[in-house]
Amino acid sequence: MIKEITAQELDTERFIDEQVKEINRAVEDGMAINALSGGVDSSTVTMLGHRALGKRLRTVFIENGLMREGESGQVAGLFRKLGVSVEVVDAREEFFAALKGITDPEEKREAITQTFYRDVFGRLVKESGAKHLLQGTILTDVDETVAGIKRQHNVFEQLGIDPEEAFGYRIIEPLIQLRKDGVRKVGQALGLPSEVFERIPFPGPALSARVIGKVTPERIETVRKATVVVERLLKGTGAFQYLAILHEDRVTGIRDGKRDFGQQIEVRCWDSVDARTATPTRLPFEILEQVAREIILAVPGIVSVTYNIASKPPSTIEAV
Amino acid sequence: MIKEITAQELDTERFIDEQVKEINRAVEDGMAINALSGGVDSSTVTMLGHRALGKRLRTVFIENGLMREGESGQVAGLFRKLGVSVEVVDAREEFFAALKGITDPEEKREAITQTFYRDVFGRLVKESGAKHLLQGTILTDVDETVAGIKRQHNVFEQLGIDPEEAFGYRIIEPLIQLRKDGVRKVGQALGLPSEVFERIPFPGPALSARVIGKVTPERIETVRKATVVVERLLKGTGAFQYLAILHEDRVTGIRDGKRDFGQQIEVRCWDSVDARTATPTRLPFEILEQVAREIILAVPGIVSVTYNIASKPPSTIEAV
Repeated sequence: MIKEITAQELDTERFIDEQVKEINRAVEDGMAINALSGGVDSSTVTMLGHRALGKRLRTVFIENGLMREGESGQVAGLFRKLGVSVEVVDAREEFFAALKGITDPEEKREAITQTFYRDVFGRLVKESGAKHLLQGTILTDVDETVAGIKRQHNVFEQLGIDPEEAFGYRIIEPLIQLRKDGVRKVGQALGLPSEVFERIPFPGPALSARVIGKVTPERIETVRKATVVVERLLKGTGAFQYLAILHEDRVTGIRDGKRDFGQQIEVRCWDSVDARTATPTRLPFEILEQVAREIILAVPGIVSVTYNIASKPPSTIEAV
Repeated sequence: MIKEITAQELDTERFIDEQVKEINRAVEDGMAINALSGGVDSSTVTMLGHRALGKRLRTVFIENGLMREGESGQVAGLFRKLGVSVEVVDAREEFFAALKGITDPEEKREAITQTFYRDVFGRLVKESGAKHLLQGTILTDVDETVAGIKRQHNVFEQLGIDPEEAFGYRIIEPLIQLRKDGVRKVGQALGLPSEVFERIPFPGPALSARVIGKVTPERIETVRKATVVVERLLKGTGAFQYLAILHEDRVTGIRDGKRDFGQQIEVRCWDSVDARTATPTRLPFEILEQVAREIILAVPGIVSVTYNIASKPPSTIEAV
């Protein structure tokens, strides 16, 4: 049973001190490694681990080819300013190879999870010689595992490391007593800038969750370009989340007076408190039309744009 | 060169008298046949032909299985009230057989055209012994043929009737000097009720133009049910056209707390003067949300609803 520390009772300075000591005690004079996604949890763990271990923490950002425009550079640049060196590992080919031919959403998720843990991160852990792994698990993740919403994995099994043979491997989860609001306080105290906390939710399978059907570099590039437009134009709405989805269905369009059998982008923008239920944001038509116009201008092959008008449930926030 | 009669200069009584005489002169004491779709042109021709020939005009409504909810019954009922008997020919199996496995929009149109002319109507013409065919061709159709927008067909060739062997077959096109506004005046003078003129545009390939991908009785039934909701709720908007499109892409939904990989309906509602350019109607969100809610309630398998926000061009009014 994990003892919860609520955001109210959290003494951030004391918490940070304790966790820094705990990490040092565990790692001793060895090396640790962690994977940074740019989200609040993994960013906070990176700062905490860096304070404890300095250069003995190797932080990797795995470029899976499914991230948003400029995302790996932004994340690495942000941490560089904070004095933390982030190693960007180009694993695009491996991810696209794993996703090749897959159209089923569950299989996509599984292919990405497998490629991330077993192939790419597993290899990095083994090569690095690090026996300690820092992870940004929070109490909500544990609850969801117990409730059966997310699957719990034995992380080392996922990494392809046999826990029997590989005696001594250890996972350190410094945030496991906190919930999101507590993590936010700790992250701020560690100097993370506001942009880390203002990021809208982004799914684990990244842009592959935003293409219906096959995931190819070309299709990811299409939805990435549409995402740039959507995020730029809807940033000011204060909505809970906004996203672009590339459909596989072809629809008829006209370009230069000729039939052009093109692609469609669906835009979703959600009002929600906790993502459990959500309703489409009532955006002004001026904005909706601007979004459509700019997507059609900026994204080759797109002839049609729609806006989601269904609520969750029965819809979901992401499309796949 | 066909001499245009503008709506302004049109003397409807005189026009009707002349056309009635002309039809009688052509058909003599024989039979004529015409296909009624329920649109303004074919409805006006039906009234005109009936006035000229009475029971010697056989009017057929071909039920292709792709019409809207209750459409054949409504059209037949409307003409029955006007004293015109319409024969509803059930050709659903033939149309669905012809459409089986076809996903390409052009091939769909071609399959429907072929089935209509060569298989169903062609057979009816031959069986009926009628050597005269009444058609609602208007001057705009001729212009479009000359401009190459629509393909001109030799109708008898389409019907599978060899014009050489079948000497004596003749097409009568009483509306060919008129445009839409002129036809409307003639139709009104012939007693057609306002509901005929208030029908929103409906494409030739009917609901098969409103399903992306394969056309099956089940998929047509799905889009038909959604069309009922869309037409009922958007009737009062004064929009140029409104429609529901069934997508082939599957999207994730939740029903009874479980993942339900369901289907999506796209709603389009257009402001337009002449269909050449069009913009999405700026519907209030209350209506958009009601449309989505009622479609999800009324149509099995639908978990997501979108609204088109792109203009024509580069979009088109229909999806396929």
